[in-house]
Amino acid sequence: MSTKQYKVGIVGATGYTGVELMRLLSAHPHVSVEIATSRSDAGTALADMFPNLRGHTDLRFVEPDIATLTQCDIVFFATPHNVSMKMMPELIQAGVRVVDLSADFRLKDVAVWEEWYNEKHVCPELIPQAVYGLPEINRNEIKAAQLVACAGCYPTSVQLGFWPLLANGVLKEEALIANAATGVSGAGRQAKINMLLAEAGDSYSSYGASGHRHTPEIEQGLSIAAGKPTQVTFVPHLVPMIRGIQATLYGQLADSTMSNEAIQKMFEAFYADSPFVDVMPWGSHPQTRSVKGSNMCRIALHRPRGRNTLVVLSVIDNLTKGASGQAIQCMNLMLGLDEQAGLTAPALLP
Amino acid sequence: MSTKQYKVGIVGATGYTGVELMRLLSAHPHVSVEIATSRSDAGTALADMFPNLRGHTDLRFVEPDIATLTQCDIVFFATPHNVSMKMMPELIQAGVRVVDLSADFRLKDVAVWEEWYNEKHVCPELIPQAVYGLPEINRNEIKAAQLVACAGCYPTSVQLGFWPLLANGVLKEEALIANAATGVSGAGRQAKINMLLAEAGDSYSSYGASGHRHTPEIEQGLSIAAGKPTQVTFVPHLVPMIRGIQATLYGQLADSTMSNEAIQKMFEAFYADSPFVDVMPWGSHPQTRSVKGSNMCRIALHRPRGRNTLVVLSVIDNLTKGASGQAIQCMNLMLGLDEQAGLTAPALLP
Amino acid sequence: MSTKQYKVGIVGATGYTGVELMRLLSAHPHVSVEIATSRSDAGTALADMFPNLRGHTDLRFVEPDIATLTQCDIVFFATPHNVSMKMMPELIQAGVRVVDLSADFRLKDVAVWEEWYNEKHVCPELIPQAVYGLPEINRNEIKAAQLVACAGCYPTSVQLGFWPLLANGVLKEEALIANAATGVSGAGRQAKINMLLAEAGDSYSSYGASGHRHTPEIEQGLSIAAGKPTQVTFVPHLVPMIRGIQATLYGQLADSTMSNEAIQKMFEAFYADSPFVDVMPWGSHPQTRSVKGSNMCRIALHRPRGRNTLVVLSVIDNLTKGASGQAIQCMNLMLGLDEQAGLTAPALLP
Amino acid sequence: MSTKQYKVGIVGATGYTGVELMRLLSAHPHVSVEIATSRSDAGTALADMFPNLRGHTDLRFVEPDIATLTQCDIVFFATPHNVSMKMMPELIQAGVRVVDLSADFRLKDVAVWEEWYNEKHVCPELIPQAVYGLPEINRNEIKAAQLVACAGCYPTSVQLGFWPLLANGVLKEEALIANAATGVSGAGRQAKINMLLAEAGDSYSSYGASGHRHTPEIEQGLSIAAGKPTQVTFVPHLVPMIRGIQATLYGQLADSTMSNEAIQKMFEAFYADSPFVDVMPWGSHPQTRSVKGSNMCRIALHRPRGRNTLVVLSVIDNLTKGASGQAIQCMNLMLGLDEQAGLTAPALLP
Repeated sequence: MSTKQYKVGIVGATGYTGVELMRLLSAHPHVSVEIATSRSDAGTALADMFPNLRGHTDLRFVEPDIATLTQCDIVFFATPHNVSMKMMPELIQAGVRVVDLSADFRLKDVAVWEEWYNEKHVCPELIPQAVYGLPEINRNEIKAAQLVACAGCYPTSVQLGFWPLLANGVLKEEALIANAATGVSGAGRQAKINMLLAEAGDSYSSYGASGHRHTPEIEQGLSIAAGKPTQVTFVPHLVPMIRGIQATLYGQLADSTMSNEAIQKMFEAFYADSPFVDVMPWGSHPQTRSVKGSNMCRIALHRPRGRNTLVVLSVIDNLTKGASGQAIQCMNLMLGLDEQAGLTAPALLP
Repeated sequence: MSTKQYKVGIVGATGYTGVELMRLLSAHPHVSVEIATSRSDAGTALADMFPNLRGHTDLRFVEPDIATLTQCDIVFFATPHNVSMKMMPELIQAGVRVVDLSADFRLKDVAVWEEWYNEKHVCPELIPQAVYGLPEINRNEIKAAQLVACAGCYPTSVQLGFWPLLANGVLKEEALIANAATGVSGAGRQAKINMLLAEAGDSYSSYGASGHRHTPEIEQGLSIAAGKPTQVTFVPHLVPMIRGIQATLYGQLADSTMSNEAIQKMFEAFYADSPFVDVMPWGSHPQTRSVKGSNMCRIALHRPRGRNTLVVLSVIDNLTKGASGQAIQCMNLMLGLDEQAGLTAPALLP
Repeated sequence: MSTKQYKVGIVGATGYTGVELMRLLSAHPHVSVEIATSRSDAGTALADMFPNLRGHTDLRFVEPDIATLTQCDIVFFATPHNVSMKMMPELIQAGVRVVDLSADFRLKDVAVWEEWYNEKHVCPELIPQAVYGLPEINRNEIKAAQLVACAGCYPTSVQLGFWPLLANGVLKEEALIANAATGVSGAGRQAKINMLLAEAGDSYSSYGASGHRHTPEIEQGLSIAAGKPTQVTFVPHLVPMIRGIQATLYGQLADSTMSNEAIQKMFEAFYADSPFVDVMPWGSHPQTRSVKGSNMCRIALHRPRGRNTLVVLSVIDNLTKGASGQAIQCMNLMLGLDEQAGLTAPALLP
Repeated sequence: MSTKQYKVGIVGATGYTGVELMRLLSAHPHVSVEIATSRSDAGTALADMFPNLRGHTDLRFVEPDIATLTQCDIVFFATPHNVSMKMMPELIQAGVRVVDLSADFRLKDVAVWEEWYNEKHVCPELIPQAVYGLPEINRNEIKAAQLVACAGCYPTSVQLGFWPLLANGVLKEEALIANAATGVSGAGRQAKINMLLAEAGDSYSSYGASGHRHTPEIEQGLSIAAGKPTQVTFVPHLVPMIRGIQATLYGQLADSTMSNEAIQKMFEAFYADSPFVDVMPWGSHPQTRSVKGSNMCRIALHRPRGRNTLVVLSVIDNLTKGASGQAIQCMNLMLGLDEQAGLTAPALLP
């Protein structure tokens, strides 16, 4: 029925962002997945690992191979950090377009990257050409990019919430707080005791409160937004649910006489052409379930008791707008397709 | 892009089967929802009640009105029992085609219906023309029907698991056990203390163990399958999850010399032309999450320790194949569309 | 075996704080529950409503009656706000000692109470003698009190986290943020659609972000701690778990040269004689599950990236230290018992 | 206050049955834990692994050592199968009394054990003296035993439900079905992908349906109860909760004229002297949450639609009555203490 004219490959498809790419792309009108790689599970049928894919794909994992991948129109990296940078030079050299869901090319300052990831970056020369994959901010740059470094999950929710306010000088740059919470799929599909249902279920806690790798990514973006170096205190939390992120953002108004209506109007105008940002009515409370499995970011603004602190509530699905959906949104832009292609299904509720 | 040539109305769209119809139909290529009714919430925007629908529909609930509904090609009843039978005579008279998700027209014996639902049926004369909406069994009758009474959630999972075995005489008709478990969305979107997260969370229990309304519906079907009166002991359980049903079925083999391979082959053959039944390899363990949000029923067979008891594991999403997805599958057949139209997205996993 | 020499009554024992009082007091060495009242459920056995109490009590709910209650040594109010103030004058007059778990006597400024609870207070003359029930702060006043107004759940977690820092001038009083999250039992045992497992499960959101009734209670306490009027931005969140609160607190250091060690030492010293506050090592991440069913508050401090913002993580069980456990702790003090009597069992983990 | 006159040791205290022993014994009036062993975590403080134990114990894990263990009055094995049998000969030789929570000494037929556990048993000569630790059945034998092999979690729930019915000839021995479901803590505290919250959460499935290691243990017991070889079809399920087991048992009445009242009366009489079995009124539905953290087994009987099939619903906490609570109950009997000592706290609800 549809003409699936573009071929894509997925490197490292055994994780949750991999199966989310498979789920979304199986319903995409213009793209078909031709290759899914895994070193550890080569030979296994994808549908044997991910039973929701039974009947939707006959693919088996294969060893990653540059020659095969370069026959794709787009290659996704759904890998942990530290993998894509090793294969990137050859792929870029071969002219393939790449959407990297990992952290390897997100930070422009390689020294900062090496400090937080505690290793040498193997191809710093490619960092300058990597376009940061947050389409609401970089839509045009993404269209033309060969290498897109998709924004991380927390950074997406935090930046989309703060950006219009900092870009328009509504908030002071000091004392910015990003209190964020994620479902457990954010920790990936890895055997860890602390992510067992018996451990993470029916509980709630912070983690990484003294410093989390997403902080420099967030600060890089917010500094661009504000036009000056900008710091944020970022504290992530783990919630006993599977999908979803909420960032609860706090900032001090630069001009306490600015009206709520003016702030709301400015915010709506900023995202007027962004189909995946839903600016809700002032004083709303978005729920993470309202975006489960969808690429939407829903945002609402509050000014508690009319005081000087502005609160921004920003929710996404960490695997969709926070990872694989955003990657497809970037791909759509790169291929000149409708930005929303394959991403229009409503969230699953209840 | 797509030509949405058919108009549908939904009566009683404020429950979970209502929002599931909206979710699925918003992605259906040939159908658009024109009317959604609610007596209690007339005037409210659907998207204000169900935040996943923000951006997907501008509809507001309206009072149910026969004149308006009769302009639809198909009318769905997503109501509790006891509602559709009151409006049905007028709709049928007006020539509208109806898919009823409620229990009002499922039982052929009106006396049994009245016993279990504890009231008079108001239009028993329409019962004979109601076609039981289980497409894997009644596909052709559904195509021609004006009134389809969709199979219930538990009855779907139980009947799809037992039917081939009884129709082929593999199991004795005695001592059939259907131990089933559902997520809490099966209880509907109603304010009940026992369905609070604080009550139903982190717990598990049976309910209705002495007798549940789905028993006569199951026995009606299994008696047809077996060609003789057939009883089943049906015990439902409540699981602290949102969506999903598993029926764990137990029966005694009629011929203990029959091989597992023969049983499996017979089972696969029975569903060879049914795109929404996935007969998994012998000895598999389907998970309810593998069908979350999808219209698939996944079934696997076991014969514990090679003895004489056969175990059938059958999973569905109670809101999709157990309700709204099945209703759309029936609608597709009635309208002469591809049986799978609008129902091909993979389950949401994780 | 034990000598249960004190008699207690519970007014409004049909909610979660009621059953938690019953659970804890059934294991208390010196106290027996003689009366549990409920207007709506008089005549019902407590064990029929709360199956964990089967075998632990033969009590039935009775209508509240002043004459009977005045024969108790202590009366607990486990009611919503607006109930205890109506019975309080007679009880106080009769000389009974009362521990009120509700909000009726927590706020010293009756005008503030009336603004937030939107009704007239019926006995403002009793407010001055009510002692705020936060034993770590008011231990001696509680010992002598006739009427104790137990601290609320969020206010307990927030005040215990901020108090030592404000009392010692470590934090500035400006830009204090209390981002808090609770399990659903905090909403009480009431039939509300938004608290269904199908609604609140597998999701996360804020609520009351523009203003929540616990804010004035928190600010009343923090102003005492700081010795000057102090405001806080308080945003609560709902977590899909049953029990537990975490307050994640943010403040700016008054003196950025103060060492982490000095802050930690000061904090530990403040709670040195408080058996129910566990000051964890600097940089720890307490989990709500570590206090499930226990009266402990566990607190840890962070200073993200060595900057000027201090982060305090404070967890309690909202039904225990946040309500019924704290009420018993107050009762122990009032009766001259060991502060820990009946409250020493470890949390349930996993 | 209490005199903790008995010393106990726990071998393999890093799992969930280990921490549950610690939790329960910390509140036991007559026993103190002196040793907790772990080969992998020797040197770690128990409270660092299990944060609920902070403030309740200063113990650190030590390497298991026979000389030290033999100074205890009782040694618990909270290990996986295959560990206790290696240390048992020396401990028995030294005269220590042992409560083994593992499967090593549960099966009387060593050939069956070796078949299911797929290895040689290293001390079959000790099997005859091992007393099966199900106090409701073997109370007197346990009192006198040196080695108690505690009943498994599923076997406890299934046997307590079936035993009175088989011992009294109420049920036929054919076509017995035990459909059981457990929370995830039953899988232990081990890093397994399929037990992640992101995998096991919001889902339900069977496992081991073709044959599970608890089947021979159950059949050994039921054969004793019935006085003849008795088979059962046992299918376990995984529920997205942390603690709890329900066995839903199905059997055919031997005499269909027997009244429900007679069955109920017989059942109650059987457990009249067993403080941890709560026979609920006929037709009740016990919930696993009603026994969370408690040593109770709650059982209710149904006869669906008055037919010939009897349904027994039996719930326990898998870590308490299904493991550590039962072990302490056995210990109490062995030491001549009150059978309920340390086990009287109500379940945690909600």
